[in-house]
Parts: sequence; structure tokens; C-alpha cells
Amino acid sequence: MTLKYYHGPALANGLKSMIPLIEKDLPYASVYVDLHKFEQHEPWFLKINPEGQVPVLDHDGVILNHSTVINEYLEDVFPDIPLRPRNPVGAAHMRYWNKFFDEHFLNYVSIWGWHRMIGAIARAVEAQEFERLMQRIPLPDQRNKWRAARAGFKQADLDYATEKVAFAIDKVERQLRETPWIAGDDYTLADINLFASGAINLELSFPQLVTSDRCPRLLAWRERMRARPAVALAVAGGKHAAARA
Amino acid sequence: MTLKYYHGPALANGLKSMIPLIEKDLPYASVYVDLHKFEQHEPWFLKINPEGQVPVLDHDGVILNHSTVINEYLEDVFPDIPLRPRNPVGAAHMRYWNKFFDEHFLNYVSIWGWHRMIGAIARAVEAQEFERLMQRIPLPDQRNKWRAARAGFKQADLDYATEKVAFAIDKVERQLRETPWIAGDDYTLADINLFASGAINLELSFPQLVTSDRCPRLLAWRERMRARPAVALAVAGGKHAAARA
Repeated sequence: MTLKYYHGPALANGLKSMIPLIEKDLPYASVYVDLHKFEQHEPWFLKINPEGQVPVLDHDGVILNHSTVINEYLEDVFPDIPLRPRNPVGAAHMRYWNKFFDEHFLNYVSIWGWHRMIGAIARAVEAQEFERLMQRIPLPDQRNKWRAARAGFKQADLDYATEKVAFAIDKVERQLRETPWIAGDDYTLADINLFASGAINLELSFPQLVTSDRCPRLLAWRERMRARPAVALAVAGGKHAAARA
Repeated sequence: MTLKYYHGPALANGLKSMIPLIEKDLPYASVYVDLHKFEQHEPWFLKINPEGQVPVLDHDGVILNHSTVINEYLEDVFPDIPLRPRNPVGAAHMRYWNKFFDEHFLNYVSIWGWHRMIGAIARAVEAQEFERLMQRIPLPDQRNKWRAARAGFKQADLDYATEKVAFAIDKVERQLRETPWIAGDDYTLADINLFASGAINLELSFPQLVTSDRCPRLLAWRERMRARPAVALAVAGGKHAAARA
């Protein structure tokens, strides 16, 4: 059995599937895809994932993409160390939160991250070369995002993203008043999703929202996340040296 | 064992969980929630789902919401007639498509549906009464959508929605060149999602996109969907008479 994991930096979706691989003690080969060099849009990678997106998991030649989908797959195939509740109600709660983070959190944290960091990268590329790079991006939304990053995101879009993140923080804080972990009594993929999708370093973009007054339980939960050896190792880049396959 | 299903018209998310209930031959009590009367925001319903959204499934007192989550739950609890592949790769393909339809299709079909139909409903309500109804809506995004429907959606948002739907149609058409059903050889929750999320009557909003030149396989697939007795029954409103619990 071989697992090969194609990923960028230990952040967001790339981190999200790396944590389960390590929690489950699965041996995997790490293939680092350099997003700053737009490697995810190069022909060798598009053969692996025609969408030009990381992460991707190659399990004995079967290609899987989208971190939430990969993580459920890992539960189905390697259930010994479970990160999905075995009772259906618990699994439903986990999926409710995964859906919430996927649809109402990640992209809004992300636009601020792109605003702070990717805009400068995009503007450093000369106009004609930038257009050439854009033509290689398979997903129109992704192309639009790069163009918006280069031009500067609209203030209305940034403000809306802040509203969405504030809503998510307050919703999570209410949940953590009721249960120790996001989906209930157990640590699950929903905790990993929240952490990787933005909770890991939320104050970088939202210092005004991440305060011990507003979300003390979220901050305490995050310390518990960081104290997990598998999470700490994944945040440090994973246990395998980066190596092109 | 009792199942109670709270739902609006047999369309979109309400249809999406009704089809599996009928496919699996599960006895359920139907509770019709009249969205035109804003019943989903009334106190009796908010006690059941504080988000003020349908559908909701009550299984022996356990409340589940979000149709994609409900449908996976039904697979976990009632696996006898499967709508989710039992092999993990098939399940991953199904989840990939469910995520795509949830994030990149449903909302964009929906904005056009709201534009065509809900706008008139919203404008028929007197301004002060409308504001009172808005204050009762728990989810800010939902409140924004009602306000936008009343004011009229921006042309740029409608145009973007059309682009997203065109992209989805072409992606589905390519898939149906490879496999008879969306996620592979089997009829799954992904087919039900595509159908209920908009394929059922796509030409109402997008007559220019739904043509036998552009998407012949999608149209043939839809005929196979409609020919399924469970799908036909669900489209007709389900097998149980509507009755307030």
C-alpha cells in the first residue's frame, strides 16, 4: 500500500488532510507543490489533478482531491484510529460543521490571507507573464481570484468576509460552551477542519475579533489542538521530507 | 421508529432528502412548512431548527438539518437500499460531486429562481411588515437574500450565476460521457443532488443553456431520473399527505 500526498504549505486545505494522515499513523510520501511558482498549474501536475488544485492524495494509483472528501475517504479505508464518530448522529454533527466551515468560513478567511500576501506576489509578476500564468489555470473562479488579488480586492468583499468570519467565531464559541469539541464529546475531522481552515492563526487577519473576551473557549480549544502531537507535527510541515516523486 | 420530515415544496433541498426517504421505502410523516407564509421563521419552527431553514429530519427526536448531511445520515442508519457506494472510492466520487453541487450549482440556480419568483412575493409585502419578517430570520445571509430579492438582484450577480451554471452543465455533460451516472456506474446521492438542486427544471431559468446540442447526455440522464418511481413520487410531493404535526 502506498500513499502519496501532494500539498502546498502546511496551511488551509493542505494542512487539513495532513493532520489525519499523521493522526492515523499512516506512512505517506510527501510531494511539495510550490504554489509561489504556480507548480499546481504545470502540465505534470495537471495530469494528476486536472483542476490544478492541491492537496491531492494518491492511494495506490487512485487519485482523490478536495480535503474534506479525502478525509472521509481516509475514515472509510483506515478506520482503526477514528476521527469520525462511529455513531451516525455524531457523524452527522461532524458533517454539519464540515459543511459550515467549507462553505462559510474557509473562503472568507482565505480572501484576507490572499489580500495580505498573494496580492504582492501577483503584482510582482510582469503583466504579460501574469496573463500567461492565468491562462493555465483550469478553474475560472481560481483565475478570477488571482486577478482580484493582483488588482486588489474590493473593500465590500473584504468587509463581507470579516462579517462571515465574525459570525463563524461566535457560532463556534457558542458550540464550545456546550461541548468540549466542535461536533460533540470527541475530537473529529470538524475540529481539524476549523483549525486548518483558519483558526490556526486567525489573529493575523482578524486581530479585532480574536480576543479572550469574545472567544475564550475557542482560544482554549486551540491550545488543546496545538498540544496534540500529530497537529504540532503537521503544522511543522509533516513527518516526511518534501521530495518530488 | 418514527421519522418526521419538515419540508417546503418538492424542489431544491426539500426534494433532495425526500427522494432518498422514498427510495429507501422508509415510512415518514410529512410536515409541510409554508415558505410563502414565512412559517420557517415562526417560533414553533425555530424551536425545531434555530436556523429557520428547511428541510429538517426528526428521527426519534434527534433533529438533523442540511439535506446533504441528512442524506449521508440515512445511508449510515438505513443502509439496506444503498444510495452511497459501499466501496470507499465510489463514496469519495459521490462526495466530490455532492460538494460541487452544494458549493457551485445550487446557489446559482437558486438566485435565478428567486429572481423570477421570490422577488414578486417579497415586493408584495408592505415595507414595515417586510422589515418585521426580516428581523425574524436567524441567518444573516438569508436575510440579505430576501432583501436583495425585494430590491432586485444585481445584474452582475445574475450574470455570474449564469456563468457558474453553464460551467456546471458542461462539467456534468463531460462526466456523463464517461459514466452512466454522475459518480460512476451506480445511481447515488450525487444524482439526486444534481436533479433536486436544479436539473429538474433547469430550462425555466436557463433555456439558452439546456439544449440537445450542448448537453444531450444530461437530458437523457434526466429522463432516466424522472422514470424512477421514487423520483416521480417525490416530485409529485411525496407519498404522505401534508399535515402539521
